[in-house]
Amino acid sequence: MSYLDQISSPTLLIDEKITRANLQRMADKAKRHGKKLVPHWKTAQSREIGRWAQEYGISEVTASSIKLAEYLCGQGWKNIHIAFPFNIREISRLNRLAESQNLSVQIVNTSTAQALANQLAQAVGFFIEIDAGYGRTGVPISDFETIDEILKIAKTSPNLHFKGFYLHPGHTYYGVDKSKIHEESREALHLLKSKYRQSYPELVTRIGDTPGCAVMEEFGDVDELGPGNFVFFDLMQVELGSCAKEDVSVCLAVPVVDISLERKEILVHGGGVHLAKDVLVNDDGSKNFGEVVLLNENGWIIPSHRSFLKSISQEHGVIKASNELLANVKVGDLLGILPVHSCMTADCMGEYLSLDGKIIDHAEGCH
Amino acid sequence: MSYLDQISSPTLLIDEKITRANLQRMADKAKRHGKKLVPHWKTAQSREIGRWAQEYGISEVTASSIKLAEYLCGQGWKNIHIAFPFNIREISRLNRLAESQNLSVQIVNTSTAQALANQLAQAVGFFIEIDAGYGRTGVPISDFETIDEILKIAKTSPNLHFKGFYLHPGHTYYGVDKSKIHEESREALHLLKSKYRQSYPELVTRIGDTPGCAVMEEFGDVDELGPGNFVFFDLMQVELGSCAKEDVSVCLAVPVVDISLERKEILVHGGGVHLAKDVLVNDDGSKNFGEVVLLNENGWIIPSHRSFLKSISQEHGVIKASNELLANVKVGDLLGILPVHSCMTADCMGEYLSLDGKIIDHAEGCH
Repeated sequence: MSYLDQISSPTLLIDEKITRANLQRMADKAKRHGKKLVPHWKTAQSREIGRWAQEYGISEVTASSIKLAEYLCGQGWKNIHIAFPFNIREISRLNRLAESQNLSVQIVNTSTAQALANQLAQAVGFFIEIDAGYGRTGVPISDFETIDEILKIAKTSPNLHFKGFYLHPGHTYYGVDKSKIHEESREALHLLKSKYRQSYPELVTRIGDTPGCAVMEEFGDVDELGPGNFVFFDLMQVELGSCAKEDVSVCLAVPVVDISLERKEILVHGGGVHLAKDVLVNDDGSKNFGEVVLLNENGWIIPSHRSFLKSISQEHGVIKASNELLANVKVGDLLGILPVHSCMTADCMGEYLSLDGKIIDHAEGCH
Repeated sequence: MSYLDQISSPTLLIDEKITRANLQRMADKAKRHGKKLVPHWKTAQSREIGRWAQEYGISEVTASSIKLAEYLCGQGWKNIHIAFPFNIREISRLNRLAESQNLSVQIVNTSTAQALANQLAQAVGFFIEIDAGYGRTGVPISDFETIDEILKIAKTSPNLHFKGFYLHPGHTYYGVDKSKIHEESREALHLLKSKYRQSYPELVTRIGDTPGCAVMEEFGDVDELGPGNFVFFDLMQVELGSCAKEDVSVCLAVPVVDISLERKEILVHGGGVHLAKDVLVNDDGSKNFGEVVLLNENGWIIPSHRSFLKSISQEHGVIKASNELLANVKVGDLLGILPVHSCMTADCMGEYLSLDGKIIDHAEGCH
């Protein structure tokens, strides 16, 4: 029996072979450059896929929230880093979790450092997150006063251990000069390392973004790479040049519920609650919420004539279909949709179906 | 103890009083016009909130998927209508559910009607969905041939019972002339009723969109109103003129994790996985992913100086803050965010916290 026979409703498919190839390629690259790969698990959010990663020598992961860190606890990770500016309302949750799991958190201001210094009951590492131009979060690269103050506060605590500097150059997602951004980021981290390694000889620097880590070949003296999305990739990464469409390892299987030959549209059950609402813009200015692939017993193939989701609402998806697709599709068929943003799609769906018909876990499906 | 003391992480709050007032107002309006209110439960997706609705004489609901219909089954609903073009891969699920629950489905083409006629093992009602200009789904209003063919197929089945015509004029969301759209929609349904009531004297017509049902006072001979979003409302509905900000009955409580006085920004834990990524555009062209309200022990108040989410990523939210908010906020505080699209936010969060500290269920939280 094919996995396709199990599907009656929108279902997120995962191709294990492509996923493992993505993991292996990034693990090899990190090794080649002498860097430690600590993937951001906000994308996969899965224990099972974590076991696949461990087979490629990956021994630490990053979580996007304490909730995800709790979910990943007890899975053999040497360390789970929570890469979100620490939320001091969660200190007691952190203390509980740190009883059984080696953890680190991220600090971006002195008041959070002080609250942790006062209230930590367990040993926890921390990175200082640096902003070198992205502008979302982090201590500005030139604000040594805040960095020094955080380090000074940490020294007053027996439980708060400085690990190093973390930088997420998320502006590589916005189409500007990726290699320039990466150079600036590396230099920022190099500067910090030079300045602080005398006092903290063990300190490491970590840089984490898929567009950079996938494409760049120069990492300078950065110690650790922390990309996330590369595990699955998606259409946004294809557009950014991080990967080929063939590297995208998840796709949403959607049932066809209506076809309009006149409008060249196919209505599917697959909308914002399945894919999330991330969107790309086609060359002609129209919107693209995902692209059609053709499902078969072995997975999916990318058709030579492009069809894409031109609009989605809560449950509905409307495909702008090629003539070739229209000629071959009927109500009740399944189509595959490559997602624009796989992290968000996986979070919406809360589980995966493998191509051999097994359910693969995701944190959101396990309440 | 205040409900606020229970909150350490992003939490969707519900104000029961406002929600009940929204339910009562729409129930009163339907009654005043002699129409039956059958709310679309894709917004609330809750059994508990369903019990509140039943107190206002609401006895039938609409679901957006068979999954939601399954969740709402056994809650005393006289009928659950699944208002999505029926997906024939789910016929056996439908047959199982129909053993214990009075159901109706939606049909938009003959092949689906034929599959149902062939395979239904239980009595199920159906509406024919009509497209009178929205262009997303439904039989085009002038396509009597398809309507006749569907009705002819249904007659061959002892289990497939025609209930009437359903119309969702979703183009009222796109800022054009709402009252003109409603007039055209009413006329379309009137025309169909006139044409088919001789053969089907019991047939009803239903129209369902919150912008129309909230504002219009003229419903002609439409029999049933099916809005959904009005139960909670949201900023999109405020913008459309369906309600005031004070009528929005859910808000996301988010912890403050960093403050930049220089940029006048507040970083909160609250991103796309909590709010979804629906967005409004401010007058100056900037984006608005939600607006700040101030939480207190009794719920929230709308501040006189506006602050809003200018950007969100998976877990991060960046608030463009008023001077008044900046002067009063500190790291570790909670702020409230009125959502742009409450249906999507509720679906992301999977449960609600009431202002007296009780968890209220949502279908997505109950796997």
